Amino acid sequence: MITHISPPLGSMDLLSQLEVDTLKRTASSNLYHLFRNCSLAVLNAGSKTDNSKELLDRYKSFDINVLRRERGVKLELINPPEEAFVDGRLIHSIQANLFAVLRDILFVHGQLTQALQHQRMDPDNSVHLTNLVFFILRNARALHVGEEPNMVVCWGGHSINETEYLYARKVGNQLGLRKLNICTGCGPGAMEAPMKGAAVGHAQQAYKDSRFIGLTEPSIIAAEPPNPLVNELLIMPDIEKRLEAFVRIAHGIVIFPGGVGTAEELLYLLGILMNPENKDQKLPLVLTGPKESADYFEVLDQFVQSTLGEQARKHYKIIIDDPEEVARVMKNGMSAVKENRRATGDAYSFNWSIKIAPDLQHPFEPSHENMANLNLYPNQPPEQLAAALRRAFSGIVAGNVKDVGIQAIEQYGRYKIHGDPQMMKDMDKLLQGFVAQHRMKLPGSVYTPCYEICT
Amino acid sequence: MITHISPPLGSMDLLSQLEVDTLKRTASSNLYHLFRNCSLAVLNAGSKTDNSKELLDRYKSFDINVLRRERGVKLELINPPEEAFVDGRLIHSIQANLFAVLRDILFVHGQLTQALQHQRMDPDNSVHLTNLVFFILRNARALHVGEEPNMVVCWGGHSINETEYLYARKVGNQLGLRKLNICTGCGPGAMEAPMKGAAVGHAQQAYKDSRFIGLTEPSIIAAEPPNPLVNELLIMPDIEKRLEAFVRIAHGIVIFPGGVGTAEELLYLLGILMNPENKDQKLPLVLTGPKESADYFEVLDQFVQSTLGEQARKHYKIIIDDPEEVARVMKNGMSAVKENRRATGDAYSFNWSIKIAPDLQHPFEPSHENMANLNLYPNQPPEQLAAALRRAFSGIVAGNVKDVGIQAIEQYGRYKIHGDPQMMKDMDKLLQGFVAQHRMKLPGSVYTPCYEICT
Amino acid sequence: MITHISPPLGSMDLLSQLEVDTLKRTASSNLYHLFRNCSLAVLNAGSKTDNSKELLDRYKSFDINVLRRERGVKLELINPPEEAFVDGRLIHSIQANLFAVLRDILFVHGQLTQALQHQRMDPDNSVHLTNLVFFILRNARALHVGEEPNMVVCWGGHSINETEYLYARKVGNQLGLRKLNICTGCGPGAMEAPMKGAAVGHAQQAYKDSRFIGLTEPSIIAAEPPNPLVNELLIMPDIEKRLEAFVRIAHGIVIFPGGVGTAEELLYLLGILMNPENKDQKLPLVLTGPKESADYFEVLDQFVQSTLGEQARKHYKIIIDDPEEVARVMKNGMSAVKENRRATGDAYSFNWSIKIAPDLQHPFEPSHENMANLNLYPNQPPEQLAAALRRAFSGIVAGNVKDVGIQAIEQYGRYKIHGDPQMMKDMDKLLQGFVAQHRMKLPGSVYTPCYEICT
Amino acid sequence: MITHISPPLGSMDLLSQLEVDTLKRTASSNLYHLFRNCSLAVLNAGSKTDNSKELLDRYKSFDINVLRRERGVKLELINPPEEAFVDGRLIHSIQANLFAVLRDILFVHGQLTQALQHQRMDPDNSVHLTNLVFFILRNARALHVGEEPNMVVCWGGHSINETEYLYARKVGNQLGLRKLNICTGCGPGAMEAPMKGAAVGHAQQAYKDSRFIGLTEPSIIAAEPPNPLVNELLIMPDIEKRLEAFVRIAHGIVIFPGGVGTAEELLYLLGILMNPENKDQKLPLVLTGPKESADYFEVLDQFVQSTLGEQARKHYKIIIDDPEEVARVMKNGMSAVKENRRATGDAYSFNWSIKIAPDLQHPFEPSHENMANLNLYPNQPPEQLAAALRRAFSGIVAGNVKDVGIQAIEQYGRYKIHGDPQMMKDMDKLLQGFVAQHRMKLPGSVYTPCYEICT
Repeated sequence: MITHISPPLGSMDLLSQLEVDTLKRTASSNLYHLFRNCSLAVLNAGSKTDNSKELLDRYKSFDINVLRRERGVKLELINPPEEAFVDGRLIHSIQANLFAVLRDILFVHGQLTQALQHQRMDPDNSVHLTNLVFFILRNARALHVGEEPNMVVCWGGHSINETEYLYARKVGNQLGLRKLNICTGCGPGAMEAPMKGAAVGHAQQAYKDSRFIGLTEPSIIAAEPPNPLVNELLIMPDIEKRLEAFVRIAHGIVIFPGGVGTAEELLYLLGILMNPENKDQKLPLVLTGPKESADYFEVLDQFVQSTLGEQARKHYKIIIDDPEEVARVMKNGMSAVKENRRATGDAYSFNWSIKIAPDLQHPFEPSHENMANLNLYPNQPPEQLAAALRRAFSGIVAGNVKDVGIQAIEQYGRYKIHGDPQMMKDMDKLLQGFVAQHRMKLPGSVYTPCYEICT
Repeated sequence: MITHISPPLGSMDLLSQLEVDTLKRTASSNLYHLFRNCSLAVLNAGSKTDNSKELLDRYKSFDINVLRRERGVKLELINPPEEAFVDGRLIHSIQANLFAVLRDILFVHGQLTQALQHQRMDPDNSVHLTNLVFFILRNARALHVGEEPNMVVCWGGHSINETEYLYARKVGNQLGLRKLNICTGCGPGAMEAPMKGAAVGHAQQAYKDSRFIGLTEPSIIAAEPPNPLVNELLIMPDIEKRLEAFVRIAHGIVIFPGGVGTAEELLYLLGILMNPENKDQKLPLVLTGPKESADYFEVLDQFVQSTLGEQARKHYKIIIDDPEEVARVMKNGMSAVKENRRATGDAYSFNWSIKIAPDLQHPFEPSHENMANLNLYPNQPPEQLAAALRRAFSGIVAGNVKDVGIQAIEQYGRYKIHGDPQMMKDMDKLLQGFVAQHRMKLPGSVYTPCYEICT
Repeated sequence: MITHISPPLGSMDLLSQLEVDTLKRTASSNLYHLFRNCSLAVLNAGSKTDNSKELLDRYKSFDINVLRRERGVKLELINPPEEAFVDGRLIHSIQANLFAVLRDILFVHGQLTQALQHQRMDPDNSVHLTNLVFFILRNARALHVGEEPNMVVCWGGHSINETEYLYARKVGNQLGLRKLNICTGCGPGAMEAPMKGAAVGHAQQAYKDSRFIGLTEPSIIAAEPPNPLVNELLIMPDIEKRLEAFVRIAHGIVIFPGGVGTAEELLYLLGILMNPENKDQKLPLVLTGPKESADYFEVLDQFVQSTLGEQARKHYKIIIDDPEEVARVMKNGMSAVKENRRATGDAYSFNWSIKIAPDLQHPFEPSHENMANLNLYPNQPPEQLAAALRRAFSGIVAGNVKDVGIQAIEQYGRYKIHGDPQMMKDMDKLLQGFVAQHRMKLPGSVYTPCYEICT
Repeated sequence: MITHISPPLGSMDLLSQLEVDTLKRTASSNLYHLFRNCSLAVLNAGSKTDNSKELLDRYKSFDINVLRRERGVKLELINPPEEAFVDGRLIHSIQANLFAVLRDILFVHGQLTQALQHQRMDPDNSVHLTNLVFFILRNARALHVGEEPNMVVCWGGHSINETEYLYARKVGNQLGLRKLNICTGCGPGAMEAPMKGAAVGHAQQAYKDSRFIGLTEPSIIAAEPPNPLVNELLIMPDIEKRLEAFVRIAHGIVIFPGGVGTAEELLYLLGILMNPENKDQKLPLVLTGPKESADYFEVLDQFVQSTLGEQARKHYKIIIDDPEEVARVMKNGMSAVKENRRATGDAYSFNWSIKIAPDLQHPFEPSHENMANLNLYPNQPPEQLAAALRRAFSGIVAGNVKDVGIQAIEQYGRYKIHGDPQMMKDMDKLLQGFVAQHRMKLPGSVYTPCYEICT
């Protein structure tokens, strides 16, 4: 079965012929496999598997081509999943997401390559990186001029338990009832639940401008395809730009329970918020969960306090089992954000003025050497310590679940993490807690630590 | 706590001062209690109880007043349920539904009383009754000129089982993916599930004009308050006008499993569709359920065949366990409906030309005498037999669950139902089947029949 | 040539079958000729004649019928003017105006007749009259809930000179640049010029909600068909209801030079504004013209001062040759009007609370007896004197140009007007001024007064 | 007086900080004077002068600066013309046009410079030139995807007589009544009249999407500032790109009477339409004027026939004194255009597939040598002859009115134009006709030819 798909109104529907040519060239480059697999992931949005391998195996005969028309670009789908169609027509959200893949994987990459070639872009220049994030978001029409601050970024695990899922949905409902929009990492679990709740809340308030942004990256989208509520799909080139995009479009952030990755995200944020250059920034940050998950946040909170100090705690608020209060804090925060942006002349849709230090912008490679050399001592500004701790957790995430990390562990044994004795003790306690709460791995499997705390 | 509520834009926001005066007068009449209780039901939409008595008991101190302003009308709420408010503001859908109650209970009644007084309206005149149904729907802005046929009426039980609920949601999703809207009886169960599914389907197709009509009547709304998805609430004066409204705004009808009441509804429809005057009408009708519920429809189907004859069966289609097929039949039916309305010059939004015979328009009182005198013999046109059978089932519903019927049974014993021996045998078999499938009463209780089939 | 015309969206497109029946009946009543002639006037909107007789003579074979369809009403046009069509399709504004005629002449009349028959309406009851004006405007969807005050009523002669026309267009442009809308008496001259100017002003400001209301009455529409800019046509049953409609929808009033009729209108307004019950009303009122017309307003101003006293002058402002200042006064007035309506709970779209005394609401018949008996003495509240003076001018207008008045003068000679000697002297001076400025009759003809001031 | 102006929604309101930096840099370059003067022209839109020198002299103290804000860009105006403001706020259309100047003069130039520097753009490459025209139009949001073909380009003189002006307005009205939009060269005369007429036509049809595109170039905008109806201002870098833009966005072209420049435009079009590669193109082309101007077109038509042959005439239609017929031809042409674009897969908003040969894309410099060397002989394909003739006329326009041409004539005497004897005779006759009709120079002045036909 072969189908030709036109871009939906407002997305890739107005390309010059030179741009289409570049696109076709890029599509036949080594990016092709990435492009094909992301497209397949998107076409598979309805299905229930979250196993990317299974998905790719099932649709081996699937293929996708970029076609050139006078009018612009079309996509040719060969043997696409049937579930993506209704009576022979592609479902609108899938069509939109398919062109989001084309736009963010091929088009952005083509533009980027040209910019690098002609030295208009320097990947080590912090200003250039931020402008790149802006360019990708603007190109995706994700920056709405004139819209009041209303975007709540929600973080948390993709495989949370039923109680946590229902709780996140209730928080979403309360956010939706206050006409707030949702941006998450695009997939299931804590990335889906707040959108589900908010959709009903929006309906109850007859709010028509629902935005459910799924902000993802190529290496994750196949394993966590967009949930059916995502109505804006954004694919950033890598995790660092994805995190920067989250922070610059957020008007408030809610963190639900998650694994050690969620701890990493909190430390990333603290690395930003504790930066003295950001002392006038407004970014309401709430950590929340049902009462059954209170422990998770208590342990995390103690760890932050003992490592980064009491002043770190003023940047977030922990709210247990009170969805309304979470939503109220976010809603009230919006006025402060608006006032602040107005006063500084900053845009509502993109926080230009928040400072993200280079050590948070640049990728961290979790080699054994890098892990061993982390500076985990108190003799440094807290925002730098936060950034270093974030790297430690990032490495553990890799050692737990990412290919590159797992192989490194198999070859060289556990990561050795050195640091201040008290800090190492706290870290050990935190990680033991995660193990005990089954947050390191899915329930059922026994967790073998990939790290060793050296005190 | 006292709050004053203004009408939302487009509803009751443009009344003349004489109309507001009439409204205030009507509000202090004997309609007051009905108005107060319906308002309370609507304010309670979020809650989970479906027990009207419990609801009324819990909010004894609740009161509501109609206020007159130069600008128009306002509502004063005294001690309303807190859940109806978000940060001190009434939720939009509840505000809208509250004014729907004001509009349909007080305003329509006031207008109606005047029309009866001045003899502009004759309650025995079939044309007047249809015009009244039209007037109520137009006054509620429920008739959208220029909208293509897309309204699917879904019927079925309010307390269906989990399997049936999930099935109805899937059907709703498939309808929503085809940009069809939903109209149900307003409450939970089969009245909620298709809306839930359709809401997601609409979101997937970026369809923005979702209409989820809840069509109810005063005697039921308190027990079955509008589910949170209803975005248009309509309250018809009684069950006959409610049924007529369903039929005249439907472009297609789907019947899910339900109790004996659902059988009654099917016979009501057959009473209309078998009427020779309606031979050119187009109204796609599908009976559907999960495979676990196949029996229900098989028994019903056999009963229809043996009583009304083979030709009755051409008016509906039974589809088991195939949500997509149900939605496809409805979608394809829409073109036929459109073509038909166009050809006959009839409106898309209101089916003026379908004939509803007086015996279906006028209320049936289920007294023992009326039940005993039903003409359940084959010596009559099938549409009249269908109407008579519908009355029989209507009486059994009353005897099972309505106050008036239960009291009559207590006082005079079971209804005696007479008729053609074979037909009585078929009827008995059908009803026994319902008993066996626990469709007469909620599971757990023993069902004592309120009728006796006399052969 | 025969054409069938459907109603445009949002106008008469949702009638019940009983309503269509009434409409058909009314169309065959003695209203038929009025309906036919008004329809012809509207179909002739593009043409340049302002002679109703010529128009009617030219299209003797024109006919119009009301058709009944299941779906609602259609109009059948027989031999309509070709200019109303573009490539065989009726021009949209003409189609809309045609159904405005149907609505305001036949539909309103039908409803009104029923209301009078059933005694729901009493033509002597001031409250009923105001509610009737409201009903007609609401039925025409002319009352926009939620729209900020922005409606400027412009009065003035239909046959003003070129200098005055260009001046009125400039005033209109300045009003339009301030996003104000225009309501006039529907025809040419001072009724067209402000709309023309405002249309360009709206375009310059990218203002999309231009409203150009033409507010007329059956006895005038044929002589002064709607100019091409009118996008909302309203036909009130008679001059008194037309004046009341002007006052209740106005948020500000501008009076350009005109004949004695314009003087009548000013006195009507003063009769309202000087009423002590209206002391808290806000209704900015400006008299304006080019410097060449300064005399006109000076004479009028002196007359008002000497008859009604100095305090009458605080209700209006005379601005000569300064379009910007006129528009600024109107624009600034809008805030005061809004504040006032808000404070009193009155509607923005209809001024319920302004008091119009019965002697201004009820028609004045200009018989010789009534003219002779006018109480033109200072021994009365000024608002009553203003009302009496308005009647005197109204009679002179009739004696000058209306059939009924001209015949009465032919039969019984001039009107004799009695009153306080000084006041009669002032009145004589004012009228002599009008004669000298050729404002009594079109230039070229000699004016023979229809009245005699008896001192 | 100093004012800061923000961009209107949808125009330059979403720039990255690097883009704003480039903008500031460009603004301080040698482009500054051009930018300042074009801005002043736009701010002066309301005024009546068409003398650019007078304008520049009057506002010597005017200045404009580009400001950088976190949020994006602002403009600082120093001593701008007061008429551009209403109650202290800049008129919306002027604000929009001001940012159009910023966008098209500075932004496009900045982008272009970078592209040339990095060799992504080659000014001799025909494909690059067309892509540049596309980029400028897309960047200005002038290409509306999904809009049906409806854009009529109107050409003709900027100083036509009253009869021709009124005629062009009538044609505009008929186009507007058919819901067609207008694109002209932005200034007065034949560039304003069709927009004025169409604006009324759109109002009569309640057509809300009026587009009045003014397509100009930097060297002309100061002399012919946008008329008040222009709601989209586009400034192309030079006359060749302006002509290409006209042709690629046109769905039909109407030519009103004009000077020799209008003849040049017709030959430009024939140079395109007679190209065999364009044989399947659809582009309805009408030459029209009032009956008083019939001669103009007759002479032109004869010239075309005798030089380019009979087959040239099939590409246009001459319609005298029939505005309705002109509009009908355009309207009917739209369906053919749509069908053609659909069939070839071309865009509605930009005609990619029409071939514009390099000799029409590249600028012609009217030196004496170039003029003398024009190949005006019949021994060549007609489209090439048309292009050569177009250059001849282009040179005469320069010799008549452009600085560069006038100086060349003063220095070296008249242009010598050589060619085929019969062709030269025809050309002489045509030009004599223009002289006799006072189309070479404004009426009142004596015309001294700047050329000599050498036979």
